[in-house]
Amino acid sequence: MKIALAQINVHIGNFESNFSKIADKISEAKQLHADIIAFPELAVCGYPPRDFLEFDDFIDKCYEVIDNIKPLTNDIAVIIGAPSRNTNIEGKDLYNSAFFIYENEVKHVVNKALLPTYDIFDEYRYFEPNTQFYCIDFKDKKIALTVCEDLWNVGNDNPLYIACPMDVLIKDKPDVMINVSASPFDHFHTRERINVLKENTSRYKIPLFYVNHYGAQTDLIFDGGSIVINANSVVYDEMPYFEEMLKVYDLEDVITSEKKLHSDNEQRKEKIELIYEALITGIKNYFEKLDFNKAILGLSGGIDSALTALLAAEALGKENVYGVLMPSHYSTGHSVSDALQLAQKIGIKHDTIPIATLYDAFVNQLNPFFENKPFDITEENIQARIRGVILMALCNKHGYILLNTTNKSEAAVGYGTLYGDLCGGLAVLADVYKTEVYDLVKYVNRFDEIIPQNIITKPPSAELRPGQKDQDSVPPYEILDKILYQYIELTQSPQDIIKMGFDEALVRKILKMVNSNEWKRHQFPPILRVSPKAFGMGRRMPIEGKYLS
Amino acid sequence: MKIALAQINVHIGNFESNFSKIADKISEAKQLHADIIAFPELAVCGYPPRDFLEFDDFIDKCYEVIDNIKPLTNDIAVIIGAPSRNTNIEGKDLYNSAFFIYENEVKHVVNKALLPTYDIFDEYRYFEPNTQFYCIDFKDKKIALTVCEDLWNVGNDNPLYIACPMDVLIKDKPDVMINVSASPFDHFHTRERINVLKENTSRYKIPLFYVNHYGAQTDLIFDGGSIVINANSVVYDEMPYFEEMLKVYDLEDVITSEKKLHSDNEQRKEKIELIYEALITGIKNYFEKLDFNKAILGLSGGIDSALTALLAAEALGKENVYGVLMPSHYSTGHSVSDALQLAQKIGIKHDTIPIATLYDAFVNQLNPFFENKPFDITEENIQARIRGVILMALCNKHGYILLNTTNKSEAAVGYGTLYGDLCGGLAVLADVYKTEVYDLVKYVNRFDEIIPQNIITKPPSAELRPGQKDQDSVPPYEILDKILYQYIELTQSPQDIIKMGFDEALVRKILKMVNSNEWKRHQFPPILRVSPKAFGMGRRMPIEGKYLS
Repeated sequence: MKIALAQINVHIGNFESNFSKIADKISEAKQLHADIIAFPELAVCGYPPRDFLEFDDFIDKCYEVIDNIKPLTNDIAVIIGAPSRNTNIEGKDLYNSAFFIYENEVKHVVNKALLPTYDIFDEYRYFEPNTQFYCIDFKDKKIALTVCEDLWNVGNDNPLYIACPMDVLIKDKPDVMINVSASPFDHFHTRERINVLKENTSRYKIPLFYVNHYGAQTDLIFDGGSIVINANSVVYDEMPYFEEMLKVYDLEDVITSEKKLHSDNEQRKEKIELIYEALITGIKNYFEKLDFNKAILGLSGGIDSALTALLAAEALGKENVYGVLMPSHYSTGHSVSDALQLAQKIGIKHDTIPIATLYDAFVNQLNPFFENKPFDITEENIQARIRGVILMALCNKHGYILLNTTNKSEAAVGYGTLYGDLCGGLAVLADVYKTEVYDLVKYVNRFDEIIPQNIITKPPSAELRPGQKDQDSVPPYEILDKILYQYIELTQSPQDIIKMGFDEALVRKILKMVNSNEWKRHQFPPILRVSPKAFGMGRRMPIEGKYLS
Repeated sequence: MKIALAQINVHIGNFESNFSKIADKISEAKQLHADIIAFPELAVCGYPPRDFLEFDDFIDKCYEVIDNIKPLTNDIAVIIGAPSRNTNIEGKDLYNSAFFIYENEVKHVVNKALLPTYDIFDEYRYFEPNTQFYCIDFKDKKIALTVCEDLWNVGNDNPLYIACPMDVLIKDKPDVMINVSASPFDHFHTRERINVLKENTSRYKIPLFYVNHYGAQTDLIFDGGSIVINANSVVYDEMPYFEEMLKVYDLEDVITSEKKLHSDNEQRKEKIELIYEALITGIKNYFEKLDFNKAILGLSGGIDSALTALLAAEALGKENVYGVLMPSHYSTGHSVSDALQLAQKIGIKHDTIPIATLYDAFVNQLNPFFENKPFDITEENIQARIRGVILMALCNKHGYILLNTTNKSEAAVGYGTLYGDLCGGLAVLADVYKTEVYDLVKYVNRFDEIIPQNIITKPPSAELRPGQKDQDSVPPYEILDKILYQYIELTQSPQDIIKMGFDEALVRKILKMVNSNEWKRHQFPPILRVSPKAFGMGRRMPIEGKYLS
């Protein structure tokens, strides 16, 4: 039996383009003589559809796609994720289902039992959990078909869940597991995923075919990495990350491999390379799905805007990236020359629009209302906000999307101006700590100095007052990032972090900065998620909460 | 037996102030010879604590408050909502519980079974549902104690849930129901709540004591309205809306009332009055909980900023509200005079800061980069964004919070400038449709013309280009609001709305405007929620989704 896995990039709610892609892949799989083709979880509508699921009309449209798939299944079975209606009176209105379509009809609808409702996931908001499990007989094989998370409670080792669907299904003696998934990227998750899938093959001793989405849906980036693991828990094949792909596997070959394949056929990529590719995918897909192609950003001469410009050029083509230098009274000569050098090196269009005149005009106009109070953060923010107005005006006039260049360390402690440098349609680096920004730049420069050395070595500065340095307001990034990671990713308490050897006053100061800046992050652009705990839908905090603040 | 209900306003995560308030109420109830005092759901930490619940340290602090309450319970039983740890290995880490504390110890911990996970609620993100139910014996009575939603599946008529805790508890023959709740206000919910509670007394034929939060937590406003209903389903007493209060009731009196009380002792308030009071509570509490006291806003001479200024003056005192007029080249004389008249009428401090010079400076500076393209939305947005810079500068210099004046109709169709008039720390009216803004103004003016008539009667305009009217860009609000309501509140399909008699092209245009402006709403300030479906956490939409857009 030949099984095709279709690692595709769909667009949430864009039923027409999704169906067209699905139909193409079915036709391709047929030509390759596949008996079955499996598409990812909720591939019909895209993942996550969020509250679109509350519209009956949206669900109707999902069923229409299923209806359109039926005539394509004369000589191939199609497994595809879609919401299905719960016909019981009680419980949520929908299931998160895998449809098994063959010979022009829906033969089976397998519903998901374990509904992730944590971090970025909200599945119990929409779906009723499944409680009935059975295997599917197809041709001479018995298939244990599951949806994503249903493989994530192997041997009941996941404290979140009580049920374990495969423990029930295995009693039917299936020949193979097929899992359709929507498993978003983070730099830990790629490895974690392979480990969990191997735990399944170890426990159930049958091969596993696992298909995942590729492509970004605003903040969430799906890396693909669809995988076939044999019954000996050896990776038979893993599809590339960050690529659309269809591959056909012969189940017999996978079974044969159990005797001769001793080491994993998996790609191995390091964290920084994965993040780099994820960010490019994130930028590229955001523009494509919103039907834009040109990006604009402010070039400060600093490392964050340099890296963002480079990633944008990689994602959109250098001819589609526009860098604007906006020096103020307090910009240093080197920051202007560094920014120019960078723009030339990457080969992007760039212009210089000084803001000193506008800044003076604002200060003159506002002076009578400042009550003789001294220069403070007000004047700093005016500069950042003038830049926001300029960049947004150019967006409006020419159809750019503004890229935000804030990094995660800054976003965490609120080091940035709301409506100023926090503007943007997409925040590229706001889930990348400053120390990781340096690692990414090192990766970018591994063969050639693309990002000029001076940008890397000079001390970071917002240049909003004379001689200003980041380190005047925030602790050194090597220490800051370690403390932030303990607090944000690992939800450690101040006491725990202090026990690790960090200065008590510093720890308390940093956590207070994090928690008292929730109001700023509330108005942040969507943030490309590359860590297990990004700001945004995955981290929901009260704005006027008083905890540690 | 005397039962005290403490309808209090707590502050999320502010354990010190919450405990101090709780201790005061316990002492007050003791003086009034109460046998039991009941506090609302999660009163120890505030509702909703959101992802603070993921911090072990936060849960420790909740337990510390419980420990501090124990010594106060020598001669009074305290029922209070708090998270409790799930000691089973499987399932979520926490329960949403009501602690029953008496004689210095926690006698019972009753866990919530029905966990709202829809709209603004995320309870299954954190809590394991309870499956074991029992009544509490106290003095000579048997108490059926439940938490909020557990009374919301009466007779299994709520399709969301399968369990019905009271159906189990009633078998123990309890004498009284006590329910501790966190039931946020919306203009339908107040009445809906009483109906559901009465369905409970109808079904179980015992009195019900129900205690709710009062006070706003950023966007969510709790109205109180704690209530006692006798076994005949007649309201014995309902506490006021939007007020902190403790009241003691004698259970025997409530039982006696079953023979003689024939009509409900409930307050009845109309929708617009409720919304008015809710918005004032929302502003007041947002400032208090963030430790601010002064608001600033732009006064355009239009009805939205007029109403916002008035609400702010009611909430914070007129001496704490600062209105800024920022006329541009395109402002009409009457809008300036209307705004001045309003500021004088309300008695708030106001200044005029013209933006024409700044606007000209921007246009001059940007002209070389506009490639001779004509005046368009770019120039309109520049004006709105200059105002944003001015208002934020005054916030920074003097410690104001900027109030956003956008209404729900505008927020829905994206009629507003991101980083311009969409700036603000709190959006006061963004859950109030334009037609409801007029109703509110009528209510405000019911005794006296506080908001000048000309502001009410003139056609709405953003005045960003010569002769501009809202109606050039958006349909008449009377039609627009009806279509928006069907789509946003009732999730109707375009076909359904067209069938109601609205023009097809208009319906499709409006829904497209709603769905293609999700990116703007993503960066909106928190919005005071007064309807059953507000923009914000209660409505989660993909940004780059393609549905109806």
